[in-house]
Amino acid sequence: MKVSPFLLFIAFSASLVFSLVACAGKEQQSMEKKRLQYALVIHGGAGTIKPENMDAETKAQYEKALNEALDIGEGILSKGGTALDAVENVIVYLENSPLFNAGKGAVFTYEGHNELDASIMDGKTHKAGAVGGVTIVKNPIRAARAVMEKSPHVLLTCAGANRFAIEQGLDTVPPEYFYTQRRWKSLQRRLEKEKKKEPIGAREEPDAHKFGTVGCVALDEQGNLAAGTSTGGLTAKRWNRIGDSPIIGAGTYADNATCAVSCTGHGEYFIREAVAHDMSARMAYLGESVQEAGEHIINEKLKAIGGAGGLIAIDQYGQIAMPFNTSGMYRGYVTPDERKVGIFK
Amino acid sequence: MKVSPFLLFIAFSASLVFSLVACAGKEQQSMEKKRLQYALVIHGGAGTIKPENMDAETKAQYEKALNEALDIGEGILSKGGTALDAVENVIVYLENSPLFNAGKGAVFTYEGHNELDASIMDGKTHKAGAVGGVTIVKNPIRAARAVMEKSPHVLLTCAGANRFAIEQGLDTVPPEYFYTQRRWKSLQRRLEKEKKKEPIGAREEPDAHKFGTVGCVALDEQGNLAAGTSTGGLTAKRWNRIGDSPIIGAGTYADNATCAVSCTGHGEYFIREAVAHDMSARMAYLGESVQEAGEHIINEKLKAIGGAGGLIAIDQYGQIAMPFNTSGMYRGYVTPDERKVGIFK
Repeated sequence: MKVSPFLLFIAFSASLVFSLVACAGKEQQSMEKKRLQYALVIHGGAGTIKPENMDAETKAQYEKALNEALDIGEGILSKGGTALDAVENVIVYLENSPLFNAGKGAVFTYEGHNELDASIMDGKTHKAGAVGGVTIVKNPIRAARAVMEKSPHVLLTCAGANRFAIEQGLDTVPPEYFYTQRRWKSLQRRLEKEKKKEPIGAREEPDAHKFGTVGCVALDEQGNLAAGTSTGGLTAKRWNRIGDSPIIGAGTYADNATCAVSCTGHGEYFIREAVAHDMSARMAYLGESVQEAGEHIINEKLKAIGGAGGLIAIDQYGQIAMPFNTSGMYRGYVTPDERKVGIFK
Repeated sequence: MKVSPFLLFIAFSASLVFSLVACAGKEQQSMEKKRLQYALVIHGGAGTIKPENMDAETKAQYEKALNEALDIGEGILSKGGTALDAVENVIVYLENSPLFNAGKGAVFTYEGHNELDASIMDGKTHKAGAVGGVTIVKNPIRAARAVMEKSPHVLLTCAGANRFAIEQGLDTVPPEYFYTQRRWKSLQRRLEKEKKKEPIGAREEPDAHKFGTVGCVALDEQGNLAAGTSTGGLTAKRWNRIGDSPIIGAGTYADNATCAVSCTGHGEYFIREAVAHDMSARMAYLGESVQEAGEHIINEKLKAIGGAGGLIAIDQYGQIAMPFNTSGMYRGYVTPDERKVGIFK
């Protein structure tokens, strides 16, 4: 057998053409990945939220609230405002709504108090701020932002965090402000159950009433990402427990190079798996898309260990993901071209 | 030009031989990676620790303490004890020593109190426990372990965490127990400096006296990893600030599949970069060794943003890393074959 130089030339040319085609494909792919002018995603908690348990009026209330939250975010971003401002103000709205487990409408601790956690992170600078266990701060997300911008620390807690918020001139309220009858009843049911059988150490069952949270992630015109999360935590939580919401890397993370993330669910699992940072790490190190990373973490990794919940995430192009492994998650997103809100699977 | 079939055969054979040699090399590499029977690494804080500022007696005191801590860990592991028990008891020893910024000898807050943080994580189950801002618990690491094993939560804080420790029957002490003259003077110097020029928001300079920490990571006979960290935090910290030490994913992480990590340094940076989880993620997703991941994070990533500190880490084979970007880090390790303690670069 003889191989002629001509055949070798043909083979070489073919491989060259193939390479060029492959390159062109890649270029096209990055063309498709053109950055949106802005995009914003919200959640209002994941859990056992089923159509059969929700009447039309309640559903309409939630959809209205989700849409109003998107309005606020879009209003800021479409005028060239920052992702940080959008995230903060959307979360303020959700905190002020008694529908969600954050700010007004937060769940009660075992002792019958409201202890609020929140965090915010700037994807451009990696700066972050958080508060855990505040009791008199009307909008914990504003306190988190003040920690980021006005203190040398990232996480302040309990009485000290309250004091810091007062020194910063943030709105404070008497603790009774956070009371809602619905959450109070929820605590009473939980305590009844406990009296009957469950030991103190029993892990909670998935239930939106028990671990609702609100969160927002955004991409702004400058290409910056931001993420924020706020919550009342778990119903009947004890001993000044702090969940994943105020933990940077667990409930919240933002990095312009990868994504902005806000989580909701059974916080203890989200801390142990460092879910928000894991999203960023999978995108950075494995080259996964925001959807692939979200799917893997929520529907494989967390599901496998019984970690109920979901997350919202957005990448530097405005691509979004909203995976959850519970029956529902209050959620919505808005871009210059599209808007959607959803509750059930 | 003509290419003979013989030459093609030679080329093919050569590449086959090359592949086989490469495979053999890989096998040899994995043979080298035989797991040690046990291994344990400790740190007592990183910062500005220079030979010219330390007299022989002080140096001998630190070396003695580090060796005694290694004795305790080795005593447990060489008898088949668990990594968790070794980590907990080594840290109890370091907490009880007034030399280190953890337990007795902790730094003072701005208001002149001692607020202690600690966490522990089990690499086998990913279970974790932590306390932030406890004030009367003699050994915060024992409280962290109790949170992991006896509560449904991961992170308890402030008065609630104190109460939990009391309910669990852990040793409590009056707050004065934690007082040391050296740390009190350190606070006074800090407050003097602040009075003169530094605004409240000024970020701290690297200084072991300001952000010492103690930590321990271990591999046991069963192949399980564990990590723990304990600290008094930053001198003159305010508003019930919590640093990275009690944050799973920031100051502490353990996963049998990758590594166990304990960090020390300017905690705010370690939280923002989710350092402990990033170690695990780089090993899992990039296939880096524990040394490569540690080197990159401490001496490139953190250094680039001014994050002073170091970490200790151990992988499932007993390979260890102890990178730091400060002038010194109190540290040591022990395996069945080797033992070393160090202070300076």
